[in-house]
Amino acid sequence: MTETINPSQKVLASVDKLWEEEIEFLQTIARFPSTIEYEGSLQLYLKNFFQNELQMDVETVDVDEKEISSLPGYSPSEWSYAGRPVVVAKAPRNSRESEGSSLLFQGHVDVVSPEPKHKWSVDPWGAQRIGDRLYGRGVLDMKSGVAAMIYAYKAIREAGYEPASDFSIKTVIEEEATGNGTLAAANAGHLADAVLIPEPFGQCPSTAQLGSIWLRIHIDTSSNLQSDQTGVGANAIEKAQSVIEALQSYREYVNRDEQKPPEFAHMEEPIDVEVGTMHSGDFASNIPVEATLEVRSAVYPGKDPAEGKQDLIDWILDKTKDDEWLREHPPAFESFGFHAEGMVMPEEDPLFAKLDEAHELVTGKQCGRQAIPVTTDARYYGLYYDTPVTCYGPSGAKMHEPDEWVDLESVKNVTKVYADFLIRWCGIYKKEGES
Amino acid sequence: MTETINPSQKVLASVDKLWEEEIEFLQTIARFPSTIEYEGSLQLYLKNFFQNELQMDVETVDVDEKEISSLPGYSPSEWSYAGRPVVVAKAPRNSRESEGSSLLFQGHVDVVSPEPKHKWSVDPWGAQRIGDRLYGRGVLDMKSGVAAMIYAYKAIREAGYEPASDFSIKTVIEEEATGNGTLAAANAGHLADAVLIPEPFGQCPSTAQLGSIWLRIHIDTSSNLQSDQTGVGANAIEKAQSVIEALQSYREYVNRDEQKPPEFAHMEEPIDVEVGTMHSGDFASNIPVEATLEVRSAVYPGKDPAEGKQDLIDWILDKTKDDEWLREHPPAFESFGFHAEGMVMPEEDPLFAKLDEAHELVTGKQCGRQAIPVTTDARYYGLYYDTPVTCYGPSGAKMHEPDEWVDLESVKNVTKVYADFLIRWCGIYKKEGES
Repeated sequence: MTETINPSQKVLASVDKLWEEEIEFLQTIARFPSTIEYEGSLQLYLKNFFQNELQMDVETVDVDEKEISSLPGYSPSEWSYAGRPVVVAKAPRNSRESEGSSLLFQGHVDVVSPEPKHKWSVDPWGAQRIGDRLYGRGVLDMKSGVAAMIYAYKAIREAGYEPASDFSIKTVIEEEATGNGTLAAANAGHLADAVLIPEPFGQCPSTAQLGSIWLRIHIDTSSNLQSDQTGVGANAIEKAQSVIEALQSYREYVNRDEQKPPEFAHMEEPIDVEVGTMHSGDFASNIPVEATLEVRSAVYPGKDPAEGKQDLIDWILDKTKDDEWLREHPPAFESFGFHAEGMVMPEEDPLFAKLDEAHELVTGKQCGRQAIPVTTDARYYGLYYDTPVTCYGPSGAKMHEPDEWVDLESVKNVTKVYADFLIRWCGIYKKEGES
Repeated sequence: MTETINPSQKVLASVDKLWEEEIEFLQTIARFPSTIEYEGSLQLYLKNFFQNELQMDVETVDVDEKEISSLPGYSPSEWSYAGRPVVVAKAPRNSRESEGSSLLFQGHVDVVSPEPKHKWSVDPWGAQRIGDRLYGRGVLDMKSGVAAMIYAYKAIREAGYEPASDFSIKTVIEEEATGNGTLAAANAGHLADAVLIPEPFGQCPSTAQLGSIWLRIHIDTSSNLQSDQTGVGANAIEKAQSVIEALQSYREYVNRDEQKPPEFAHMEEPIDVEVGTMHSGDFASNIPVEATLEVRSAVYPGKDPAEGKQDLIDWILDKTKDDEWLREHPPAFESFGFHAEGMVMPEEDPLFAKLDEAHELVTGKQCGRQAIPVTTDARYYGLYYDTPVTCYGPSGAKMHEPDEWVDLESVKNVTKVYADFLIRWCGIYKKEGES
């Protein structure tokens, strides 16, 4: 008696067969310390992997700030773009015409700072596997997603198939600070009819995300230095107190219920307003005359980031003017990094229905929808290139914290969902010479 | 007609004659960027100068923490002592017995950090002369004093004399953070019957000085990291707010009139309590889980520095416990750098009377006495070696600030006062071969 095995079953079995190899691949890429500006060596590794292991057609796109700085979605960068391109890999067409809609899987390879490293109980670059988890900086956010989307395609190939319509994989840089990698590649024409991003918010497609703005705030108490007599204006660290208090009251304000749009109304505090860094002084017996604070705030969808920044600046200036000295010497504000709009995703697209089907096939459960209280590169496709997009990815914990970990079972499931989705979206054909 | 020129007149004329050379010498030593731990090359330069230009007998004393760490007056250091000895130069005795009391001139060659360098309107290491002033990091505190004490002796030599009693010059390291250079050299036996230190508090002998304590305060909000779920305990920068507020209220408390000893009762705020540095976070989109503050406080004479530190620690712990999180996770305190007692100087010594006479001869005015609201290395001699000591030095402004400057006329006057004082204290004799 012969059972008919359908292509999807063959592909999902192929994911299982490749699973230990996929974990090793994830460990390999997780061991690249690819913080922002240091993604180059990992991108080179992936470029070679796409070419040599997957026989894909690979292009790289260098970010050229002159070309993108006037585009919507550009964020001011402070990092050199030399030697850290976006990598775009296309499944070979083998002289076949593309049938149907094209598809792009995208992930970022940059990771946030592992500091303070001494707070980790494992090596942040060790990619250590403990039971059902893998630990390390970026294993969750989002190298496991990158591994999953790549191994979804590899499983299809190993099962003897190729996508029937155009399919590409894009690994981008600098998602954690600007998104300019995605913007540059999209502007260079690397687009598709639908985009899936395996950001690690769990196996539930996102339909809304917040924007994000960064500001650098400078307090300068050296004004009295113009005098030739002793005496700085004030202790810059003490003056920074008022700025931090203003941020706290702003956080309270923007998270009031009446401020929340419907997509985020169920969250108690959707808008994270945080001082991420503060540095002042270099000698205990000098009075610090400069303090620099780096601050981030989320912004709701529909809010122009420039307007969001101005709201925050106005709030700080208003609240700090109770301090006589700060009223005369207001802090200075500098835009750097994120200047990112929020987005409500166009949910009507077949992308969501097909993703639901793939999810249900793999997990046996229906999936819901979620709004995510952070930004992702999905915004470029949804807002500026009219392309349906969603985030659907693995689970874990401690993103942006020591001891970040990913649940390996979720990675395997995401790999299968991406593979099955690819079959549903692109269709597949049997490669020549395969039985 | 022949006028009799007394030795002092000859020596003071010699100071005038050497004046441009002295300024050049001051510029030379001011161009060594001798911040703490980087005094070595300047000490080598001075050692050679003492040997080759002044024919003095030179010894160096390396600081050995094992030897001094149990002595009173020791401050915990964080800097390597390799290659940065104290230099002790003795006037040659030329086979003559010492007649009378010995004398030591001492100055420190370390300088505080020039940061923020971009706030200077001149090169901090340029030693630029503009009119009657010299500008640069350390020109006031206290390389001009070092130049003055050295050229006082050089003027005596150039006038054909040598001190009749033992005279030595000591250049020390690390005065701005610990004083361990002075402690090591004193412990090695390099002492005298009186000590003059040309610290730049103007031409008025000091009779009291405050002590100084440094503390490093650590805030660690990573406690929740023990959980395997997302969520740090708190934003460390926000939690530091309460510590800074506690320091402000402590400053108010210790400067209340009833706290002030008589020597400092005339000052509005003798006790400087300041946060000198604060550093937290390294990435705008992470929540900082560690903040480190370096704090200094003066302490009144008679107060054990250990007790002063404990007072401050108790105050901070008491005030921050209003914050629920800090009550459960109190800040940690680390001793580093200054652990310095205050001192009221033994004013009855002939040192003061002779210094008054020298001052009056040079300036035509009487000098008063002053209490200085900081610490100096004078404390070692007064407190632990029963040696009369005072600070008397040049004037200027912006110590520990950008655009530090020294008034050159005051340097010349101090040079003359030190030369005349040396004659009064040690006596002088005519060198062989001099007419």
